[in-house]
Amino acid sequence: MLKEIFENVQKKNPLIHNITNHVTSNDCANIQLACGASPIMAEALEEVEEVTAISDGLTLNLGTLHKDKATAVLLAGKKANELGKPVIFDPVGAGVSAFRTETAQRLLEQIRFDVIRGNASEIKSLAFGCKNEGGIDVSEKDVENGLQENIALAKKIAKETGAVIVISGKEDIVADDTIVYCVKNGNPMMSKVTGFGCQLTCLIGAFAAANPKEPLQAALAAAAAMGICGEKAFSGLKEEEGSGTYRMYFMDAVSLLTGEELEKKARYERME
Amino acid sequence: MLKEIFENVQKKNPLIHNITNHVTSNDCANIQLACGASPIMAEALEEVEEVTAISDGLTLNLGTLHKDKATAVLLAGKKANELGKPVIFDPVGAGVSAFRTETAQRLLEQIRFDVIRGNASEIKSLAFGCKNEGGIDVSEKDVENGLQENIALAKKIAKETGAVIVISGKEDIVADDTIVYCVKNGNPMMSKVTGFGCQLTCLIGAFAAANPKEPLQAALAAAAAMGICGEKAFSGLKEEEGSGTYRMYFMDAVSLLTGEELEKKARYERME
Amino acid sequence: MLKEIFENVQKKNPLIHNITNHVTSNDCANIQLACGASPIMAEALEEVEEVTAISDGLTLNLGTLHKDKATAVLLAGKKANELGKPVIFDPVGAGVSAFRTETAQRLLEQIRFDVIRGNASEIKSLAFGCKNEGGIDVSEKDVENGLQENIALAKKIAKETGAVIVISGKEDIVADDTIVYCVKNGNPMMSKVTGFGCQLTCLIGAFAAANPKEPLQAALAAAAAMGICGEKAFSGLKEEEGSGTYRMYFMDAVSLLTGEELEKKARYERME
Repeated sequence: MLKEIFENVQKKNPLIHNITNHVTSNDCANIQLACGASPIMAEALEEVEEVTAISDGLTLNLGTLHKDKATAVLLAGKKANELGKPVIFDPVGAGVSAFRTETAQRLLEQIRFDVIRGNASEIKSLAFGCKNEGGIDVSEKDVENGLQENIALAKKIAKETGAVIVISGKEDIVADDTIVYCVKNGNPMMSKVTGFGCQLTCLIGAFAAANPKEPLQAALAAAAAMGICGEKAFSGLKEEEGSGTYRMYFMDAVSLLTGEELEKKARYERME
Repeated sequence: MLKEIFENVQKKNPLIHNITNHVTSNDCANIQLACGASPIMAEALEEVEEVTAISDGLTLNLGTLHKDKATAVLLAGKKANELGKPVIFDPVGAGVSAFRTETAQRLLEQIRFDVIRGNASEIKSLAFGCKNEGGIDVSEKDVENGLQENIALAKKIAKETGAVIVISGKEDIVADDTIVYCVKNGNPMMSKVTGFGCQLTCLIGAFAAANPKEPLQAALAAAAAMGICGEKAFSGLKEEEGSGTYRMYFMDAVSLLTGEELEKKARYERME
Repeated sequence: MLKEIFENVQKKNPLIHNITNHVTSNDCANIQLACGASPIMAEALEEVEEVTAISDGLTLNLGTLHKDKATAVLLAGKKANELGKPVIFDPVGAGVSAFRTETAQRLLEQIRFDVIRGNASEIKSLAFGCKNEGGIDVSEKDVENGLQENIALAKKIAKETGAVIVISGKEDIVADDTIVYCVKNGNPMMSKVTGFGCQLTCLIGAFAAANPKEPLQAALAAAAAMGICGEKAFSGLKEEEGSGTYRMYFMDAVSLLTGEELEKKARYERME
């Protein structure tokens, strides 16, 4: 099943409109190309709606947020909703500043998302408006939350928003309001390179755009694909190779991934 | 002849002012350093004219366009024209939104370009103001255009603008209003990594700045150099290596390229 | 001693707020992750003070400067001063345009810096307000300055600002108003890849945040670490490998660096 989700990306070559952040935009474009999709980055108020209109899906990332971008994500999101195109939301830094938290809340009120992906601190900030003092990474106390606590969090916000929720972490949770998966693929090295969260969001965008009626399965497939590529990158690493090489091996793995490999190597469990 | 064009870059170490896009700006800076030029990125209205004035050439890229940048490219372009410095134009996304198409048209009206580089869809949008629904990549129907159709397109817009036109594709066309070259170097993997178009524009900028009286030969040499490095990167690729490693091998190839290698490996044909 | 400076970064995992430039922001985030720190990039006027307030240190980079960013660096710098957090300043392009030179001067007047890092042309522009026609790289005539001239320059501006001054070059100078070190680690290939200056600034930011009472030693350790990793990257380079691979090996070296290795391989001399 994950196999078909992935092969649809390669068959349909969906065009994804990404409003992304300047730290990771290059990696975000490359991961979409590597998996068979086509990225376009555009965030000017003058053009976001038009770009969304010709695209098959939209990803909205709050990293390096600024005032115009806070408006652009709203415009693009509304246009995508109007045209029935999948919208993926990455609330980077929600909880870190009032500006990001409030922008995230406004988006939740005005846009219907197909998938929302963040770390536990970011998703908690969406659910409760709470502050995160850990920067853009998950805060230490949120890491200590048990799996059950994160599952409850994902279900709560899934119910409130109607979106599939992906909480990235040591194990990823992928949930809608009734079904919960726990994805066990991945490697600790992934936290030593910037942008894997943003890249997962863009991968979900590609998978959801190619499978618009199956956001839960698309998110599950993307989370598993990400983790598999993270494992594969690590297994190729020699003693003298570090985070620079790891990052490159990861992109290699994405570009060489096949539907069969994804199906075979995905390790996930249905929790509920 | 291409040899000398290239060696002039390494000898003169030209300073290039790039108004580029945030997705590919790092690669754009690195390719200029790799070929022997020095990049400077600056797009604030407060400084673009001053930066152009101390530079040996200017590249203008419409990727991740926003309002101030649309003004900045005009200011910088006019200053470069006034001072007689080579200006290279990359109409990224022309045809995708009215904002980009109109900005591109305004630039064509007000700036004299030495070289314009884009894919067939972008160059068509410049010539006819037409829409491109394929995102920033060439649209499928434009790929199907025969070589002859693209040659006619390049000559038309070369005649209208006085610029050398480079249409990137499976084979690159490099043309002014009387001479047309077809460059056969390159590799299909280049379409699986973001930013090779932007990088070619920046390479042309470096080559044209070091050879200001020979924009046609500079563009030809840059297109051939790009393709040769794309071929070399592919030939080094092992089975388990994908688009991440390809991108790195490509930059290696640029940094190791010599004038002799360029002369020897360039495969191009004069069509008219 | 350098060993402890470095191990404090790995122990404390400081959160660093970086107002950086869009050409090098990805590398800047990755080098901080590689050395054991956590980066956050934020430059919106709406949030910079809040982000500085939760961070352990702040780096301010004038690359790709624009109007709002010129205000943001002031706001963030004042907040960091108010809260006693280390502030590192990288005057990229000071001397290239009035906009950058004046922004740099305003920052010097209003912010107390713990460390200022630039090339000789940029530091000269801070000291004398003079113009640099060499772009963002050190101008040729400033390269020809002798070591003694640069030491005098560093001491002058250290005395005026109270900051530790790092002048990057073939040999790095690290000085406060009484003590001067000359760091001999490094490799010429470092000038063929964009962003090593910005990355050193971010490394200093991480080291100074983890050792807030020792900015001189932190800057010395960071400059030596940078140079050691540049040497190590070069020593691993095979004949067919160029600047693309070099860049990756460099990041590998940072992520694998240990306190002991830093202590053992650092080559520096106290000059005064």
